[in-house]
Amino acid sequence: MPGFYLMIATPQSMHFAAVLPLQSGAQIRDYALSFETYGRLNADRSNAVLICHALNASHHVAGVYAGQDKSEGWWDNMIGPGKPLDTDRFFVIGVNNLGSCFGSTGPMHVSPDTGRIYGADFPVVTVEDWVNAQARLLDALGITTLAAVMGGSLGGMQALSWTLQYPERVRHAVVVASAPNLTAENIAFNEVARRAIVTDPDFHGGHFYDHGVIPKRGLRIARMIGHITYLSDDVMNEKFGRQLRSALSQKASFDAGPPQGETAPAGGSAVRVATSVGASFDAGPPQGETAPAGGSAVRAATSVGAYLFSTQEVEFQIESYLRHQGDKFAEYFDANTYLLITRALDYFDPARDHGGDLSLALARATSKFLLVSFTTDWRFAPKRSREIVKALLDNRRDVSYAEIDAPHGHDAFLLDDPRYLGLVRSYFDGILKELAI
Amino acid sequence: MPGFYLMIATPQSMHFAAVLPLQSGAQIRDYALSFETYGRLNADRSNAVLICHALNASHHVAGVYAGQDKSEGWWDNMIGPGKPLDTDRFFVIGVNNLGSCFGSTGPMHVSPDTGRIYGADFPVVTVEDWVNAQARLLDALGITTLAAVMGGSLGGMQALSWTLQYPERVRHAVVVASAPNLTAENIAFNEVARRAIVTDPDFHGGHFYDHGVIPKRGLRIARMIGHITYLSDDVMNEKFGRQLRSALSQKASFDAGPPQGETAPAGGSAVRVATSVGASFDAGPPQGETAPAGGSAVRAATSVGAYLFSTQEVEFQIESYLRHQGDKFAEYFDANTYLLITRALDYFDPARDHGGDLSLALARATSKFLLVSFTTDWRFAPKRSREIVKALLDNRRDVSYAEIDAPHGHDAFLLDDPRYLGLVRSYFDGILKELAI
Repeated sequence: MPGFYLMIATPQSMHFAAVLPLQSGAQIRDYALSFETYGRLNADRSNAVLICHALNASHHVAGVYAGQDKSEGWWDNMIGPGKPLDTDRFFVIGVNNLGSCFGSTGPMHVSPDTGRIYGADFPVVTVEDWVNAQARLLDALGITTLAAVMGGSLGGMQALSWTLQYPERVRHAVVVASAPNLTAENIAFNEVARRAIVTDPDFHGGHFYDHGVIPKRGLRIARMIGHITYLSDDVMNEKFGRQLRSALSQKASFDAGPPQGETAPAGGSAVRVATSVGASFDAGPPQGETAPAGGSAVRAATSVGAYLFSTQEVEFQIESYLRHQGDKFAEYFDANTYLLITRALDYFDPARDHGGDLSLALARATSKFLLVSFTTDWRFAPKRSREIVKALLDNRRDVSYAEIDAPHGHDAFLLDDPRYLGLVRSYFDGILKELAI
Repeated sequence: MPGFYLMIATPQSMHFAAVLPLQSGAQIRDYALSFETYGRLNADRSNAVLICHALNASHHVAGVYAGQDKSEGWWDNMIGPGKPLDTDRFFVIGVNNLGSCFGSTGPMHVSPDTGRIYGADFPVVTVEDWVNAQARLLDALGITTLAAVMGGSLGGMQALSWTLQYPERVRHAVVVASAPNLTAENIAFNEVARRAIVTDPDFHGGHFYDHGVIPKRGLRIARMIGHITYLSDDVMNEKFGRQLRSALSQKASFDAGPPQGETAPAGGSAVRVATSVGASFDAGPPQGETAPAGGSAVRAATSVGAYLFSTQEVEFQIESYLRHQGDKFAEYFDANTYLLITRALDYFDPARDHGGDLSLALARATSKFLLVSFTTDWRFAPKRSREIVKALLDNRRDVSYAEIDAPHGHDAFLLDDPRYLGLVRSYFDGILKELAI
């Protein structure tokens, strides 16, 4: 019987000596990209699928690391043997982007030009730059054409950009919970998070590594803001409502989804990726973790149903949850990477060089498309996906679009909605037939 | 011809020696409330209207201070001679709440018990406590019964609470852009703002006054978060969209609304209330201010239409706007007051003592009601007002409800929508007829 066996993932790293010109006019050389592959490339090299990650995920997309049962990749519910994107049929590639903090060259690495840690001097990278770097990786792997490129959120922007930068190399693009650019509100949330990091006295202008400190205060605030925007108002009310922290003692865990282990990304970084419920702006679904209660155990036991009347202690479960997520994030995520990746989000805007006309911008695309959005996603709302759909249809492209009625907000793209997973499975089945693999 | 003359406001202060028991079990004594009154109390003392403020407003509700033409009160478009709430007919009272920072006793004042500045030791105050303090002020002014109590947002919560705490003293309640309690998402935004303040190294556990510093970093972040939630996604896109900061040099001002001066609140405080466009979570409508551009003039002139490719400099107008609002707020608002007032928002929940049944909770109310909500207000959405309406109708109370189709989000309650202002005018005309004033 095929499928559903435990897939062991093996992180790899590829070094690139040649200069990569960047959109900003700067360049980068002697960089490494961490990546993983799953499944086997077929004889005519036609079954490769590239997965693009978003804010805080990595190249560890699927499977587990040997001897680490709970180290599932961030999209392991979607990708693997017998799964919607079936690694028994497709050769799947996960890659950590330049500037990230999970193994690929980023701000905490040493610049070959200065001999010092990049820090805030790491060049600004854009979605287009990432796609160019990914294309070089595919070149090195001997892959000319992708059966598909796929991503959610910022990953979806990369998938879309692939179809514009390398139309001849992409047969299908799967763009989930994404947008053709950020709205003012999206940029505003990114900016507040960035200001929290940059104004943290421990940021030291982005050169905190030299001072042996980490701007954890800023990272915590950034992550708390992020979390609010990944969830829908409804799911937040359902999971937390106005419950007081005292109820936490009766509840072992915040988790609503399937258990998932922490991911230890490879590629030379000792940093661990913690993926957790609601934390999953492109990380993974919920894990079986216990969230700390706000007050002491004594207080929690004696204050059931009563307000503490405190401005600084945890009163409500939602506060405890957010503080916990912020604390975890500040332990593993790099502050400069946060700035770089949110800026890449801000900058992405393919219509920009076409007077704001997305239909003109997407005329270059020749691939087929699947777009998926989620009704309660207010960060990348369905109407933003519909803008892409419309622009593609204006160009008479082959587009499938699904708007999934899911309660989970932006997080939904990482969760186990059967209609969503079934839809992606059907789409890849169609690709198989097309390729006659 | 009546109305529309310039009304001069005169701040006053009332001292209260007697202990005020607070909901938390703590108490406060020897406190002062700053207030203003407009119009004249009639012979049978039946025409008094109390205005309750929300997060960052004050007792200076209407009119201007002598010699300060641009010192309009925060609800001056609503209240004054010939205005919807007509001070030629009604005796209107504005009061600054306990714990605020515009003259009434608050965290920056000296505690009579310790002889030291309260700071973080200022007792937690709730909506119910504020209403009790307001009731004592009315007692001192010789007012037994209010023709109406009126407020927006957190002010609306106070108006609602008046009808429950002192049903026999309120004839009408006007509750605008409010809610019967905060959602988990509302609390979450408050919590992130509080964490930004509390984790600012300059907060010093709330006793920063002793250190001669102000936690401005935290206040800035808090205000930026607030601003995002006061505006609708649509109006933010319309006003800022993805415009680059370079366009700022061509635009004298961010302001969309009528000019309004800064308000210098009285009552012993040297702090100035800056009310500004979008800044108006219960402050005032737009002012004629010039927002600073992000980069240098040279850069702005040479980079029109081009990205700077920077993670820390201002790229987009929305960033410049938010930074400007954050900077202004940090200059005048007290950090401990921010904690206290957001906590009062979190705590308000009249249904809480009734098993969560709002209909049971509102059974005590005997007044008549006008509720108003705004379609694009996602902070206090129309459905939250409808919950109040439903609970009142369950009790067969006399309720008018209007859902105004306005694009401005939560801020709409302070702006000049003619339907909104007309509606309030009609409602107060009805009260006049009822009172036969």
